Amino acid sequence: MIKLNMQRYSDLFGKTRKDSKKYDSINATLLIKAGFIDQLSAGIYTYLPMGKKVLFNIENIVREEMDKIADEILMPSLAPKDIWEKTGRINTIDVLLKAVDAILTDSRKEYILNPSHEEIVTPLAQKYNMSYKDFPFALYQIQTKFRNEKRAKSGLLRGREFRMKDLYSFHTSRKDLNKYFEIDLKFYWNIFRKIGIEQYVVEALASGGDFTDDRSIEFQVKCDNGEDTIYHNLKTGEYFNEELINKDNITQKEYEIFKGSEAANIFKLDTKYTDAFEYTYKDKDNTKKQIYMGCYGIGISRLMGILVEIMHDDNGIIWSQNISPYDIYFITNKLDNNANTILQTIMNTNKTVLLDDREIGIGEKLKDADLVGIPIRLVLSDKSIRSGGVEFKIRNEDKTQIIPIDNIDKFLK
Amino acid sequence: MIKLNMQRYSDLFGKTRKDSKKYDSINATLLIKAGFIDQLSAGIYTYLPMGKKVLFNIENIVREEMDKIADEILMPSLAPKDIWEKTGRINTIDVLLKAVDAILTDSRKEYILNPSHEEIVTPLAQKYNMSYKDFPFALYQIQTKFRNEKRAKSGLLRGREFRMKDLYSFHTSRKDLNKYFEIDLKFYWNIFRKIGIEQYVVEALASGGDFTDDRSIEFQVKCDNGEDTIYHNLKTGEYFNEELINKDNITQKEYEIFKGSEAANIFKLDTKYTDAFEYTYKDKDNTKKQIYMGCYGIGISRLMGILVEIMHDDNGIIWSQNISPYDIYFITNKLDNNANTILQTIMNTNKTVLLDDREIGIGEKLKDADLVGIPIRLVLSDKSIRSGGVEFKIRNEDKTQIIPIDNIDKFLK
Repeated sequence: MIKLNMQRYSDLFGKTRKDSKKYDSINATLLIKAGFIDQLSAGIYTYLPMGKKVLFNIENIVREEMDKIADEILMPSLAPKDIWEKTGRINTIDVLLKAVDAILTDSRKEYILNPSHEEIVTPLAQKYNMSYKDFPFALYQIQTKFRNEKRAKSGLLRGREFRMKDLYSFHTSRKDLNKYFEIDLKFYWNIFRKIGIEQYVVEALASGGDFTDDRSIEFQVKCDNGEDTIYHNLKTGEYFNEELINKDNITQKEYEIFKGSEAANIFKLDTKYTDAFEYTYKDKDNTKKQIYMGCYGIGISRLMGILVEIMHDDNGIIWSQNISPYDIYFITNKLDNNANTILQTIMNTNKTVLLDDREIGIGEKLKDADLVGIPIRLVLSDKSIRSGGVEFKIRNEDKTQIIPIDNIDKFLK
Repeated sequence: MIKLNMQRYSDLFGKTRKDSKKYDSINATLLIKAGFIDQLSAGIYTYLPMGKKVLFNIENIVREEMDKIADEILMPSLAPKDIWEKTGRINTIDVLLKAVDAILTDSRKEYILNPSHEEIVTPLAQKYNMSYKDFPFALYQIQTKFRNEKRAKSGLLRGREFRMKDLYSFHTSRKDLNKYFEIDLKFYWNIFRKIGIEQYVVEALASGGDFTDDRSIEFQVKCDNGEDTIYHNLKTGEYFNEELINKDNITQKEYEIFKGSEAANIFKLDTKYTDAFEYTYKDKDNTKKQIYMGCYGIGISRLMGILVEIMHDDNGIIWSQNISPYDIYFITNKLDNNANTILQTIMNTNKTVLLDDREIGIGEKLKDADLVGIPIRLVLSDKSIRSGGVEFKIRNEDKTQIIPIDNIDKFLK
């Protein structure tokens, strides 16, 4: 059991890197240097043990909230090309990646690597839910997605392969869709609150993109390196993606303008996809009626990148408590009785700890602790013992304090 | 909280199908009819809510055991083609699926959709672990894989897209590799025990396939529809995949012959991949030395298919307790005080329940309960009340018994 709550740094796969190389973005540079991810190719990354923990922490928060309003399924990444021809999106969506090979002996069959799953979920729903009694319902998945991204240049913000949560809701009226839309908004805010970035997020109105002719809502995270420009109307309080702004008509005074990175987006698809697949339901009076759809995305790996973009300093990453790979970064130069007492207390309070047990100087360990970004740092040394205990520091604060070893459980809660 | 422990059948997405269509295999037919999976295309499936639960139950058992002997990471599905050229496997492995598209403006870039990750994990390990102090170490992932499968005709047993656990271990000597190999075997048996199929599994010697020139060990599950033929040497007790048998030399008496389906395989790769990527480590004396590798696979979605192949009867699936999507299938025609008492007891014992609350005849509900295959069935009816309580039945036994409602907690443990 102790193994899972305690990781020795000396055994960790994916240690910090000393080189001063800069990658394509702050998030890539810090995540690679701190040992969270490795770049295989532009926009394609491996999640190392600590990176996988962060990714799963985000996924589990998203899952916890989405389980309250939808059923989790898992759809495939591959789809036969003809499904994408039904909606015409094979010609309009410019990020489709195609997989082609000689699967049949006499012909090459083409598949789409789905960047989105409207084309899969609509015919799926149609197979099962045809009666008015089945509505409303909602399905979601957390899954790997692919994009034929021409410029994959922002670390986890813009990947060719990435993790995403996508949810699809089905309704018998626009009114019911609107109602679910508001519910979904509420649960999205729960997610941002749990992740610890609520204060950086705004709801911005944007275009419907490839998905719908209607407007969409984007959850934009204020972020200097964001790819979007957001206009905040100071009079109405509303936020708009630049694409909706007619620049000839506005004055600087009316708007606060800032950069944002899109962490999530939600669309009212109305009947675009249900019409394309001729998916109708049978009402009480036995007539066929139209079905209204909504879709609700959260970029999981992108969120991981955004977190680093907005929560770091010159020395490294600053993880929030619910996302951090470990609760505590514990530096000690020997595993004596004091160290063991501290470790035991950590286990008893059900916290997880990265134990930096390397035979290197304390200076290097302190640097790595800052780079890795775990919220609580403990330093046990001869000096700290002489001062009365173990040194305690919050990653995001300057203050350090000495805590009697018998007392640390009170500080770990 | 109750929502997560109790699912009303009327709200379930993926209800049983009444049609008598037969799919390409027993597992596909039963899993599709019972509402666990949906077929998008040959060898490509969606996991519906109950199917996703089964898949995750298997994954979590595998994860629990693998966490004891390796660190979890997540590698990408896409890999640039040139990585696969280094080992030459681009020409020898016949199931590579290629993704091609105009990612760069002036040329089409080709990616491989990895069916296996030796080509990814070896250079990854090389980036981080170069010193003798770093060895041995092992990395694993649970991930979606792709195969250019010419005949995808056995449901979840042979997919074009499938879930897999793959683990890779790295050693400074063949001896150390051998030692880890034995440890891995032990943890694989833990997995089969927890899944409830230990008695069907044998370790069979097989060729190394595309992976190594050495022999490999397959975990073969005795299964009438298995794709492999296994020879059991009655004198030595050893099992062999047919491919290793010289049929001219053997007599029927010496061997018991049966069909098997391969749930897992493990290979001693030795230095094949570390040589290809020139991955060596620096020993204490500062000399460069060879690194020995092993790889260890478990087909997660395939295991789900195998479970159905070996654990079903004429009426449907028979899930083992640890794998079942719910603990209890509860049939009742009204949600009265008795039903609520039973539901409350189920919640208190921390069990999960699928509540068949549909307004249909009890005959159809009993049929569906058998088809879906949840281990415990409870039937509450006027008749059961007159007999003294609720009817209790184990899916895999013929006997039914009436239990006083106050007493059911004792039967649910």
